[in-house]
Amino acid sequence: MKGRLYLIPAPLGDNPPAEVIPAPVLDIACQLKIYVVEEVRTARRFLSVYGLKGHIDSIEFHELNEHTSAAEVEDLASLFNKGDVGLLTEAGLPAVADPGSALVALCHRIGIEVVPLVGPSSLMLSLMASGLNGQSFAFCGYLPAKTEARRQSIKSMEKTSARLNQTQIIIETPYRNDSLFSDMLITLNPGTLLCVAADVTLTTQFILTLTVAQWRKRQDFVIGKRPCVFLVLSQ
Amino acid sequence: MKGRLYLIPAPLGDNPPAEVIPAPVLDIACQLKIYVVEEVRTARRFLSVYGLKGHIDSIEFHELNEHTSAAEVEDLASLFNKGDVGLLTEAGLPAVADPGSALVALCHRIGIEVVPLVGPSSLMLSLMASGLNGQSFAFCGYLPAKTEARRQSIKSMEKTSARLNQTQIIIETPYRNDSLFSDMLITLNPGTLLCVAADVTLTTQFILTLTVAQWRKRQDFVIGKRPCVFLVLSQ
Repeated sequence: MKGRLYLIPAPLGDNPPAEVIPAPVLDIACQLKIYVVEEVRTARRFLSVYGLKGHIDSIEFHELNEHTSAAEVEDLASLFNKGDVGLLTEAGLPAVADPGSALVALCHRIGIEVVPLVGPSSLMLSLMASGLNGQSFAFCGYLPAKTEARRQSIKSMEKTSARLNQTQIIIETPYRNDSLFSDMLITLNPGTLLCVAADVTLTTQFILTLTVAQWRKRQDFVIGKRPCVFLVLSQ
Repeated sequence: MKGRLYLIPAPLGDNPPAEVIPAPVLDIACQLKIYVVEEVRTARRFLSVYGLKGHIDSIEFHELNEHTSAAEVEDLASLFNKGDVGLLTEAGLPAVADPGSALVALCHRIGIEVVPLVGPSSLMLSLMASGLNGQSFAFCGYLPAKTEARRQSIKSMEKTSARLNQTQIIIETPYRNDSLFSDMLITLNPGTLLCVAADVTLTTQFILTLTVAQWRKRQDFVIGKRPCVFLVLSQ
């Protein structure tokens, strides 16, 4: 009898896990004895905040991150001979935009059941709160960092949005939020809708959708260095 | 002082809400006195299961569904003069693929704060459990129902997936699941990855990613009439 892979979510910031993760999910997280994590140090801290007491030193941790080779991922297959395994992310949902998806893909290849558990998704929370089209949307990850390439990407994203009536969702490294935002205001059409969703689920949460023309009038608006999702809909 | 709009999620089936919705979210849902819902009858049932006791008859319900005109949506603006308003969906996250997004858009236009709350997203749970690309993905809603148009859409979806290395996510009315699935097996390339995610979060949950060639060998596989998400990645 092989174990299963449980996908364990994490809060999007320093708020208490019980605010954004259902209690039975935290219970499962505290019962697992084998974990695959991005970084052992933060994983220990998370599990402790999740309510784990006593056996944290007996938990088996394995790292899976951008330094993990494909062969090392394959080696993780043997863990399921010992029982259930948890995949823990650093923020939000595991395996959506982190290296964990390689382990999930492996599980499907070798016949291991994968159990996704509910937690906060900054992308979906931003989308539902944006008022933009939720019937058709695309997550595009990060845009190029250099100005010229970035502006071209923004323009091309707007064209795709217009062609498909599709909300385009992007994220950025926090320290580049304001330069990306400024490039969007320069590049996008005045009538295009732009939602800025920062610190979602935190007490400092800010979510606002305006047209680009309206944003341009708010010259003193600053996002700052915090987790932020940008959503664009050409109309 | 105007009220805020709280976006209240719902379970994806008949499982207990506390399994998939954090306790503080259920608490907020039980405290609100004004609700915008798709259908009053099911909304009452949900709130009762969420733990609401006593004042259910004093709650003000307003319907917002596919029969609601744009002018009627505008009229909902006055509700926020009376206090906080809840937007409740029939399943999963409100305003993602339901008429509620018109109310959210209105809130941004008139300066009402929108507060999205955590709950189960069948799309994100399926995506994280699929092992497919979570760095770039698109939700395309429903495909056309007629065979010829549907097969063309499937082919075009696969081309987009190959061009952008983007996971394509679609849903279908449950009674059409198996005919869509059969059209996908006929139309997609043998090497394309296809994930079928049915009854996500329920005890009957089934999630499996295989290549189209592997699916074709499982001739007796039937999805049946249950909520199902399909995910495609050309590789």
